[in-house]
Amino acid sequence: MSRAEEADGDLVARLLDGEHRALARAITKIENRSRGYRELVSALHPHTGGADVVGITGSPGAGKSTLVDKLARTYRDAGLTVGVIGVDPSSPFTGGAVLGDRIRMASNVGDMDVFFRSMSARGTLGGLSTATTDAVRALDAFGKDKVLVETVGAGQNEVDVVRTADTVAVLVQPGSGDDVQMLKAGILEIGDVFVVNKADMDGADRTVSELEEMIHLRENPRANLDAGHHGVAEPGDTQAGTDAEAAADEEDGDGWTPTVVETVATSGEGVDAFAEALSAHREYLESSGALVEKTRTRHAEEIRQLLRADAAAVLERELDRRGGIDALAEAVSERETDPYAVADEIVEPLRECVEGDG
Amino acid sequence: MSRAEEADGDLVARLLDGEHRALARAITKIENRSRGYRELVSALHPHTGGADVVGITGSPGAGKSTLVDKLARTYRDAGLTVGVIGVDPSSPFTGGAVLGDRIRMASNVGDMDVFFRSMSARGTLGGLSTATTDAVRALDAFGKDKVLVETVGAGQNEVDVVRTADTVAVLVQPGSGDDVQMLKAGILEIGDVFVVNKADMDGADRTVSELEEMIHLRENPRANLDAGHHGVAEPGDTQAGTDAEAAADEEDGDGWTPTVVETVATSGEGVDAFAEALSAHREYLESSGALVEKTRTRHAEEIRQLLRADAAAVLERELDRRGGIDALAEAVSERETDPYAVADEIVEPLRECVEGDG
Repeated sequence: MSRAEEADGDLVARLLDGEHRALARAITKIENRSRGYRELVSALHPHTGGADVVGITGSPGAGKSTLVDKLARTYRDAGLTVGVIGVDPSSPFTGGAVLGDRIRMASNVGDMDVFFRSMSARGTLGGLSTATTDAVRALDAFGKDKVLVETVGAGQNEVDVVRTADTVAVLVQPGSGDDVQMLKAGILEIGDVFVVNKADMDGADRTVSELEEMIHLRENPRANLDAGHHGVAEPGDTQAGTDAEAAADEEDGDGWTPTVVETVATSGEGVDAFAEALSAHREYLESSGALVEKTRTRHAEEIRQLLRADAAAVLERELDRRGGIDALAEAVSERETDPYAVADEIVEPLRECVEGDG
Repeated sequence: MSRAEEADGDLVARLLDGEHRALARAITKIENRSRGYRELVSALHPHTGGADVVGITGSPGAGKSTLVDKLARTYRDAGLTVGVIGVDPSSPFTGGAVLGDRIRMASNVGDMDVFFRSMSARGTLGGLSTATTDAVRALDAFGKDKVLVETVGAGQNEVDVVRTADTVAVLVQPGSGDDVQMLKAGILEIGDVFVVNKADMDGADRTVSELEEMIHLRENPRANLDAGHHGVAEPGDTQAGTDAEAAADEEDGDGWTPTVVETVATSGEGVDAFAEALSAHREYLESSGALVEKTRTRHAEEIRQLLRADAAAVLERELDRRGGIDALAEAVSERETDPYAVADEIVEPLRECVEGDG
């Protein structure tokens, strides 16, 4: 059978035809790594590239869900179609949350054309970020104009997940020094747009100032050092600036300065400005050529991850065929063999196979 | 050529014959991954298993170097031979430090039979913990009775490194709440012996009590919960207990309760008690059968790591042969192909090769 035949052609056709039920089934297949999911993703890939993918992260309680609801409504009011993937790297559960969240979206946005889907750590062989990337592909191929990837927390796993987006928004709650510390620790580096939500709370202005100062340091780490400003800045600032500079160089070139917007998600205040800030970053990515570069880098990383996971699976089966890892470890412990001899014996045939007998 | 012939037989013979210069050359070869290092390690492995390997970690400034010096002197006074590997996962430099540290050891211990070697993140293809494991093997095959693996810091990389030891000692500086936080964050789980160094400082008794309480929670997480103690414990405590419980179950079974000793490394006070605590853990490992289990688990993990690294190298060369990852990523971005098709095309021949044509 060819790849196309192995993919469920009917499912693909119905998804491309705009059937939400087919979209849901496709994502379930992707999430569960069911038979044929690879061919399914292969069949969807040529139809992708039209969606604007936005990742939204931030510490729990910052108001991500409400803001995502309001942002989705704003897009719908502008006549755009929207898909949302809610990712919880810490939770092994799904299913129940899916229905609950769908109801939430339907009631808040008042229109079923915002397709919401939860994903969790369950069934994420090959990594949650790989599964998320593939689910985004399904929404993209379906024809959604905007795909929002919302994470529950703001740890390293969440960072990996939202990095699969074109534009990353980081939510901060005013007055929480913890958030600023968290940002200094690494999340600053990935934010294209910072949102101070609950902007009606005390301390919002100060949080905005702090973020703007951090962005300034990120953009001008050397100017800061040359001016002897180092002595008065907090110890963490310069380091964050340096790390962020490296990340910025790698990711976006030097062309984009992150913006800070204030919102009150519960009332909807500032959400239009947030949507505009996201659009501005998208326009920057397109006009500067950074989007092409970013997409290529992401595809390269994706190929590497798949290769590693696939090779690991081949090796696991080969280990089983040779009596299992425990027996081999036992032989090493008994000094009958050693780890390098075992590795060579297993990998050498692969090497010869790939590189010929030379 | 056979494996044995590919290994430098003369180097191996001189090392086994007790020549320190050959030991130093072997470790350099291991650290640099020079041609023939795999065969060298294979040739050394049958001669290993005699050394007691102790890992020592803790935050910078806790006094690790001084304590290691004093511990080495204690072992030498008891007529035992000692090798020390100082590991700095954050530093890309080596060489200079080696000489400096050797001089330090020679002058402090007053005898050249404490062989000291620094290792850094330089030339650590395949990971610093792999290189450290192999260097420990060289010292073990050489015939050192005690091998001490000392890390510079106490982060995740250091944890990976010291986990290669049979017994792990964690140093804590009194009165530093940071240390306790750090311990709660994960280092508690790997400590078999805790050392409150600088025990003449204010707050030492309190740090000892805190450690003992944490160990009690680690041993009895359920008792703690059942007694409703949860409400008064600090939020982090129970979590640390639960995590630690899982780790303890996995590593040592339920048979070892970590001990806490107090030392003043600068004066040598408490160092004998520290050495006894380390010996007690070693005796526990041997008499309970946990050492056999632990060694086998470590060898299994080592085989897996080598397989992953070797397969990754084969895949990288295959990617190069196919025009490089950038060209493939470009083709994916242009929708000429997709990541799964690329991965299948590269891995499928490997799979067939290993599993036959079926």
